[in-house]
Amino acid sequence: MTGHIYWKNSVLYLLDQRLLPFKKVYVRCKSLKDVVESIQNMTIRGAPLIGIVAAYGVALGIFETIASMGKIKKADVDRICKSLGRTRPTAVNLFWALERMKEAYGQCGNNAHMPDLMLDEAISIHVEDIENNRMLSLYGAELINDRDTILTHCNAGALATGGYGTALGVIRAAHESGKKIKVIATETRPYFQGARLTAWELHEEGIDVTLVPDNHAGILCSSRRIDKIIVGADRVAKNGDTANKVGTYMIALCAHEHKIPFFVAAPVSTFDKNIENGSYIPIEERGGAEVKYVGDRLITLDKIKAQYYSFDVTPEKYISNFITEKGIIEKPFKKYIKML
Amino acid sequence: MTGHIYWKNSVLYLLDQRLLPFKKVYVRCKSLKDVVESIQNMTIRGAPLIGIVAAYGVALGIFETIASMGKIKKADVDRICKSLGRTRPTAVNLFWALERMKEAYGQCGNNAHMPDLMLDEAISIHVEDIENNRMLSLYGAELINDRDTILTHCNAGALATGGYGTALGVIRAAHESGKKIKVIATETRPYFQGARLTAWELHEEGIDVTLVPDNHAGILCSSRRIDKIIVGADRVAKNGDTANKVGTYMIALCAHEHKIPFFVAAPVSTFDKNIENGSYIPIEERGGAEVKYVGDRLITLDKIKAQYYSFDVTPEKYISNFITEKGIIEKPFKKYIKML
Repeated sequence: MTGHIYWKNSVLYLLDQRLLPFKKVYVRCKSLKDVVESIQNMTIRGAPLIGIVAAYGVALGIFETIASMGKIKKADVDRICKSLGRTRPTAVNLFWALERMKEAYGQCGNNAHMPDLMLDEAISIHVEDIENNRMLSLYGAELINDRDTILTHCNAGALATGGYGTALGVIRAAHESGKKIKVIATETRPYFQGARLTAWELHEEGIDVTLVPDNHAGILCSSRRIDKIIVGADRVAKNGDTANKVGTYMIALCAHEHKIPFFVAAPVSTFDKNIENGSYIPIEERGGAEVKYVGDRLITLDKIKAQYYSFDVTPEKYISNFITEKGIIEKPFKKYIKML
Repeated sequence: MTGHIYWKNSVLYLLDQRLLPFKKVYVRCKSLKDVVESIQNMTIRGAPLIGIVAAYGVALGIFETIASMGKIKKADVDRICKSLGRTRPTAVNLFWALERMKEAYGQCGNNAHMPDLMLDEAISIHVEDIENNRMLSLYGAELINDRDTILTHCNAGALATGGYGTALGVIRAAHESGKKIKVIATETRPYFQGARLTAWELHEEGIDVTLVPDNHAGILCSSRRIDKIIVGADRVAKNGDTANKVGTYMIALCAHEHKIPFFVAAPVSTFDKNIENGSYIPIEERGGAEVKYVGDRLITLDKIKAQYYSFDVTPEKYISNFITEKGIIEKPFKKYIKML
């Protein structure tokens, strides 16, 4: 599951996640506009990956501007970042990556090799993400016991990141260390990231995975069919409140009710040091059409209204621990998140 | 939304709910086997409707046996009931209806008009169900305020019953009394009863309805976008623990967390006087294929395992009130359920 994002001959190649696992088609991004569209239309998704792709998008925008204008100014870089920043509101990794690219530009803007240095910075963000995934996964694997059954929601896997994954990285690392584990993957409506991506990623690696509808967490918790829950995150506030794929909050409530550990695996770039709590996290609405259509198939009459909030916020009190590349975060989260 | 089940010239006509709202096709049941299959393969569903259809199935089985054997014995009626009783395990209305048909046979077994009297009994069960729906809906409508937004899960509508509905009956009655209400219908994976049946039933009647994925109850409760929740039931234990479509329990946890009233609307025939609590309710498993396919479209690779529990149990402590044809049931439920 590597190679779902790579740069070659001035083109950013993105494996189209909307078609997986049925078709493997790469979208070729040759311009800033291509990258903006690929983030908006969910060719790629997953908070860390959105950040990485945006970083490459900045580099692409810089190459593009220089090719057409012969030069580039700070205002152009700001415009490029603004355009990428408007794509999706919830995942903070996007804004984190854009800030880092702006800082890099601040340091190398006058350097003759600036465009290549900016591309190097994007590649660094990409490579560091994979390293961080591996590091947090090693920490997280310590929390997993032999023969655990673990539920995960949406896809926080290799495909959601630069590679390896966060929640699925932890599962991978536990599996690689020889622990026999089973995974329950929620299908994750309406985009079926769990069905299409998570179940597929794990199945490909020989990890025992079973798909269930999102509404199954209740009965699985109450009947003690799961031992642990691990999810990724799109944004974590200073107090630990966590935005993740819609449905995460309900699963956390079930876990809490049945005293099942609920872990959030996320790199430090997912922690937003600017907001006190989850009420400040903007929640994206993506429109009813994405609910009403499964591919080209309607699940109800087209004239019926539908609504789709992409994310929800899980209050910190329902989270047992965060798993980061700097280690496991214990409570009180506010105190330890500050130290990240 | 009437006429989804009727008897004509010795044939039971069932509107095929698997094809709604896209196609209106009636399945013609001419034999006990046809009825058994129609319940098993979900041509029809909904606890009260399963009971009604089973009652007609007993009559059909009696006609069939007499036609082929020239006579019928009590052992034949027992065999017919046993065959129908094996179709689906959770909805107690099925067993209630079969018991009632057996009692009717006990009273008219020696009567020359026995087969017609048995058909009359099935029709009575059908007609009484509609009357009970209307009565419980009038009681329930008193709990609804003008301008309420109400979330419902699965389909407890006209289509789940003899007509009119339980949870949707309450919503209908509130609407008919002039209250302006909005409804949020969860799509209800994997069969999309909410998307295909509930949203359609309500839209047809001019009731404002919005479809959401099942995983949206959390964010809708936490953001106070809903005022009340009403669902139907497949079986209620003596203490009030309630089996209903899988996912109900998670919604009830969200409602409780945010102090949103959670009502269960069900006729007295849904209350099982034989079991102390929800742990005794058998939960049907229907197999992974129903999760993996949306119509003929796969949502993941076919080789991936999937699991589907049709129902879950909501503990009585998360239920605000029951709404029955005998009135609103307050806590302590155990005391008042005993008096039904």
